[in-house]
Amino acid sequence: MATRRFEAPNDAALDALYEDIAHKDLQPLWELSGLLTPAPKVKAVPHRWRGKELRELGERAGELVPVDRGGDRRVLSLSNPGLGGVPYATSTLWGAVQYLGPGETAPAHRHTPAALRFVLEGEGVWTLVDGDPLHMSAGDLVLTPSWTWHEHHNPGDTSMTWFDALDLPLVEALDAVFFEPGQGRTVPSATAARSASERRFGGGPGLLPGGSTAPAPAHSPLLRYQWADTDRALTDQLAEAGSKAGRTGHAHVRFADPTNGRDVMPTMRCEMHRYLPGHTAPAERRTGSALVAVFRGTGAVELDGVPHALAPGDLIAIPSWTSVRVLADEPMDLFSVSDAPVLEALSLFRAETDAG
Amino acid sequence: MATRRFEAPNDAALDALYEDIAHKDLQPLWELSGLLTPAPKVKAVPHRWRGKELRELGERAGELVPVDRGGDRRVLSLSNPGLGGVPYATSTLWGAVQYLGPGETAPAHRHTPAALRFVLEGEGVWTLVDGDPLHMSAGDLVLTPSWTWHEHHNPGDTSMTWFDALDLPLVEALDAVFFEPGQGRTVPSATAARSASERRFGGGPGLLPGGSTAPAPAHSPLLRYQWADTDRALTDQLAEAGSKAGRTGHAHVRFADPTNGRDVMPTMRCEMHRYLPGHTAPAERRTGSALVAVFRGTGAVELDGVPHALAPGDLIAIPSWTSVRVLADEPMDLFSVSDAPVLEALSLFRAETDAG
Amino acid sequence: MATRRFEAPNDAALDALYEDIAHKDLQPLWELSGLLTPAPKVKAVPHRWRGKELRELGERAGELVPVDRGGDRRVLSLSNPGLGGVPYATSTLWGAVQYLGPGETAPAHRHTPAALRFVLEGEGVWTLVDGDPLHMSAGDLVLTPSWTWHEHHNPGDTSMTWFDALDLPLVEALDAVFFEPGQGRTVPSATAARSASERRFGGGPGLLPGGSTAPAPAHSPLLRYQWADTDRALTDQLAEAGSKAGRTGHAHVRFADPTNGRDVMPTMRCEMHRYLPGHTAPAERRTGSALVAVFRGTGAVELDGVPHALAPGDLIAIPSWTSVRVLADEPMDLFSVSDAPVLEALSLFRAETDAG
Amino acid sequence: MATRRFEAPNDAALDALYEDIAHKDLQPLWELSGLLTPAPKVKAVPHRWRGKELRELGERAGELVPVDRGGDRRVLSLSNPGLGGVPYATSTLWGAVQYLGPGETAPAHRHTPAALRFVLEGEGVWTLVDGDPLHMSAGDLVLTPSWTWHEHHNPGDTSMTWFDALDLPLVEALDAVFFEPGQGRTVPSATAARSASERRFGGGPGLLPGGSTAPAPAHSPLLRYQWADTDRALTDQLAEAGSKAGRTGHAHVRFADPTNGRDVMPTMRCEMHRYLPGHTAPAERRTGSALVAVFRGTGAVELDGVPHALAPGDLIAIPSWTSVRVLADEPMDLFSVSDAPVLEALSLFRAETDAG
Repeated sequence: MATRRFEAPNDAALDALYEDIAHKDLQPLWELSGLLTPAPKVKAVPHRWRGKELRELGERAGELVPVDRGGDRRVLSLSNPGLGGVPYATSTLWGAVQYLGPGETAPAHRHTPAALRFVLEGEGVWTLVDGDPLHMSAGDLVLTPSWTWHEHHNPGDTSMTWFDALDLPLVEALDAVFFEPGQGRTVPSATAARSASERRFGGGPGLLPGGSTAPAPAHSPLLRYQWADTDRALTDQLAEAGSKAGRTGHAHVRFADPTNGRDVMPTMRCEMHRYLPGHTAPAERRTGSALVAVFRGTGAVELDGVPHALAPGDLIAIPSWTSVRVLADEPMDLFSVSDAPVLEALSLFRAETDAG
Repeated sequence: MATRRFEAPNDAALDALYEDIAHKDLQPLWELSGLLTPAPKVKAVPHRWRGKELRELGERAGELVPVDRGGDRRVLSLSNPGLGGVPYATSTLWGAVQYLGPGETAPAHRHTPAALRFVLEGEGVWTLVDGDPLHMSAGDLVLTPSWTWHEHHNPGDTSMTWFDALDLPLVEALDAVFFEPGQGRTVPSATAARSASERRFGGGPGLLPGGSTAPAPAHSPLLRYQWADTDRALTDQLAEAGSKAGRTGHAHVRFADPTNGRDVMPTMRCEMHRYLPGHTAPAERRTGSALVAVFRGTGAVELDGVPHALAPGDLIAIPSWTSVRVLADEPMDLFSVSDAPVLEALSLFRAETDAG
Repeated sequence: MATRRFEAPNDAALDALYEDIAHKDLQPLWELSGLLTPAPKVKAVPHRWRGKELRELGERAGELVPVDRGGDRRVLSLSNPGLGGVPYATSTLWGAVQYLGPGETAPAHRHTPAALRFVLEGEGVWTLVDGDPLHMSAGDLVLTPSWTWHEHHNPGDTSMTWFDALDLPLVEALDAVFFEPGQGRTVPSATAARSASERRFGGGPGLLPGGSTAPAPAHSPLLRYQWADTDRALTDQLAEAGSKAGRTGHAHVRFADPTNGRDVMPTMRCEMHRYLPGHTAPAERRTGSALVAVFRGTGAVELDGVPHALAPGDLIAIPSWTSVRVLADEPMDLFSVSDAPVLEALSLFRAETDAG
Repeated sequence: MATRRFEAPNDAALDALYEDIAHKDLQPLWELSGLLTPAPKVKAVPHRWRGKELRELGERAGELVPVDRGGDRRVLSLSNPGLGGVPYATSTLWGAVQYLGPGETAPAHRHTPAALRFVLEGEGVWTLVDGDPLHMSAGDLVLTPSWTWHEHHNPGDTSMTWFDALDLPLVEALDAVFFEPGQGRTVPSATAARSASERRFGGGPGLLPGGSTAPAPAHSPLLRYQWADTDRALTDQLAEAGSKAGRTGHAHVRFADPTNGRDVMPTMRCEMHRYLPGHTAPAERRTGSALVAVFRGTGAVELDGVPHALAPGDLIAIPSWTSVRVLADEPMDLFSVSDAPVLEALSLFRAETDAG
């Protein structure tokens, strides 16, 4: 009966219906397709940017472009070829290299998108976060969490380059971008070798200030993770015969909030990986995207089966559900930032290992 | 010195630099603008769809379009005029009306985007969620959480219309959409008046199964919230002289997971509001978007100061940071669904009251 | 060598050592025994008090003892025969029957030990908790959490008896007992059929007040659990063919904080059990102690293999690590309160099933 | 009328009632007193044991008593003078000094009471915890959590003394003591300078093993906290001009589980305090008890206003609700262990500052 009702489709009536539907800012689901796909239909593509080229372009920009020109930052942002020209590395992450010349300053501002800096090379820039001066040197991770004031100073006589990551595309997709420029300069009279955040929360593993009753912020109160500690943690993992790292030749450390073990910021997970030649870590694909910066060593990464040679300073965009397999020619250290905390918080995280 | 270096900009060199930058899939931040705005730059616009028109179009579709035609659902999706033609109600939420005729069935499927149904009118459809039959009648909220099998059956002889909300735009932005069509039919031999989920978790406020050791799912195990309970909770709030609801004439209930008090699903908050004529709830704006369905009563809503008359069945899209003020001509019940849990989980939630 | 050193024990020197040790308020571990036992060495013994006798003694006390005589409560406390004369039912729990005659009032006070009332029979007493009047009738659970003001009023013309449970022995062992007598009377002008706590948090399963931002207290904000809801939850469990309750003939409900699913109070877990004749729930032993009140039905309980007949009003003390097996002659409803949340919070909870 | 009923008390009837009540293992609350006191009625008394005497007695015991004599440990346990001869330092904590001579071994066992060791002096003992060898030297904190196998080895040629703390009195009060002797010896072939637990979780502040999916134990997976880190954390706090420690001259560090920031074990909080001469930390009293060991420096502590001189190695028992004020003659380091996590978990924690 129901079937009969539709035996003779009345095209005129149907056309009229569709017209009225469209006129009322509606759309008929049954005419739509590609909304619900068996697996994610990802626009961003796997891509690698060469560190050598990023450095060279940064230096040329340093020659030609004053840092305080629009945006107050001398930043080259990764523009994923699959995303149609927006300056985003993946659908949720912004990635960039920032270049600060001798004597230059990137003035203070704050914004709801959270940012982090991983120092690829060099030494001597101070990043002020809410007035707390953080010393930056190669291998350090520095956090500038959501809505914290931050500015960069290079008092030295050599330029410095670092990797910037932000959750800007995600925060924009959520229509939650707020920005505020800073007033004047907040340079402290003197800068200590260790920041206040390190003196309070960086005493050692599992050591927290006593009697602290301040409400926990949404981000780690430890704003700088020194390379020396990270390096030791990776070395320790590989040195332990019985451990998974010792067996596989793949060590990795997750940067965590020392007060609760959660990720350093609610939107981004930071990790450092060390792969030894011949390691046996399998190829894996995950929901959510990641950016990877090569800190030390050479090798390659296979993204959906396509190999990309890796050298220090290279940056890699890994879109959601891309198969990833790493090959190391020598011990290779990779810094990674991903939106995994977001996928996990929303119960949308999936991972599977495959043949790559 | 640094300043002098930039006194005479070398246009040719700059052009060459920009060309090389673009050629390497990079963009110069200092030439970009509008990335970081003082307040959210929201594409979606406030909009109201009239219930009368939605019903009428649903009935016409019922006459002309078989339910099993592409998409397996007879759904008219809200297409926000600001979003350039995509079938999304806001940047993170899908909204729609679904129409199921007598004797019709919407077959089983599952997908990672989570869905919920709020029954605007009628009675008698059964929604099966992972094989558990949920009876639907006016005012009921029914959940079909992420990746649960679900299908709709209308064994009666009258059609039924309900409001669908999904987090599809958000899950798509996160590149985490998975979909699987169902195999055959999973109709249970008999359908009880109360679902298994209600018999286990719906015994009463604060009553949970004893000795339960199963790992908690990410969503509420209670899949149906009956109107009778919701109505009583709102009535109770308003009846309490001392309470905020009693003082302001605005009651609201949040639908929660009875096992932990969290929102019914990790991506969507559901609430029912009752406004009395002359209530004193102030205008408010929030980050994150919401959809509102008028269940009972008439009145108006001011969205960024623009009034929209409200009648039963109307649907309203409230984009992020839109000022909202409700006016009631008579006691008015509004069902709302928002992405507030997402903004809160990522520490991006902001709200402020204003003069509207 | 080390062994040789001890070949010839020097008794005089040893005696002198022991004397000096004792003189300095020390004790030599190697002379102590029974400190660390293979299994808990429990002083309290399994015991059953007969409801018939408790009622009769309560009535006689009602005739002879004014309620306001020392303690302000007409309470007969369970004194476990194994505990050497202290008025405690187990090592961590106080249990008692309280009898309030027509027109009597038990005046206001508060204390850090938390208390709860389970109504064995009768109707019509009002318990005020921080000024919120809670109606009490048979089968109801009423909470008077730590440090809340509470008083009992019997405006009716019949006496009423209920079961009291407190965590007093635990709080005393932790040296954390505080007490404060009330000033005068706090009777509200009128008492509603449902308390404010029920109007706010008792609307229905999974329904919470919207926009609530008050810090959550350590206890459930829902202070009364009505028998009608509890009864329905148990009936629903048993009616569900596939469920564990349906299979075993043993249903049980845990009373929970509706805002977070945790136990009603941090020190006591409350449950209602229904056993059908021939149920197949096995004998079990657990760390931590419990008190059980027979609400309806008759049967027996085997405690460490010793059977005790059960009838309505009976109270049972179940010390830690006692094997418990229930036998039902007819459908039997047992209310239980235990210190399980304490054992769990301290990671000391153990359970095992055995042959009883 | 009610009043009249009690005008002529019937002594004979009352005596008969009391006799019957007692005969039924009940007690009349109205005849009991001292159950609910305005403030905690604490049996344990403040007490100080002198380190000099503890050392001397430990050495004499080392001469006269083989370690494997009853109890397998050469331990002198603190017996609080107020507790009537039980070997407990407070109502919830066991405290002791343990002495292990050159070449001696304290064999393996495990028990549900949790234990920790704080090294007062010396160097070179290895404590095996579930087979993981932990090196012990002055100032180190070593954990042997509930139900972990542990044994102590002194391969060196000098004796070593440390402070033991256990939650034994608490676990006994909860009737949850289990004990199991070890089978044979579990000495690893080689002992690394850093334990496996330190290599996994001790890399640095906020550095956790990546991809770890093992369920978190109830205790810290980091089993040794080195003095060098603790010392640095205290020095950093005092060096920070703006900080509370910098202002007051009182620094304190809480030893935490690096994976979640919680206390090292669910029943005991461990802290290290450094007081500078003239510090301004006020006297304070708290619910729950604590034991303090003087590691470095001299000064005094006022307990309920009574001063006790302090020197290295002294142990102090601080019962619940005792007023505590510390005075430092020179920089003084105090290790403290308390049951604060228990009081907090059960919502029984209170603290107030007073004039001492």
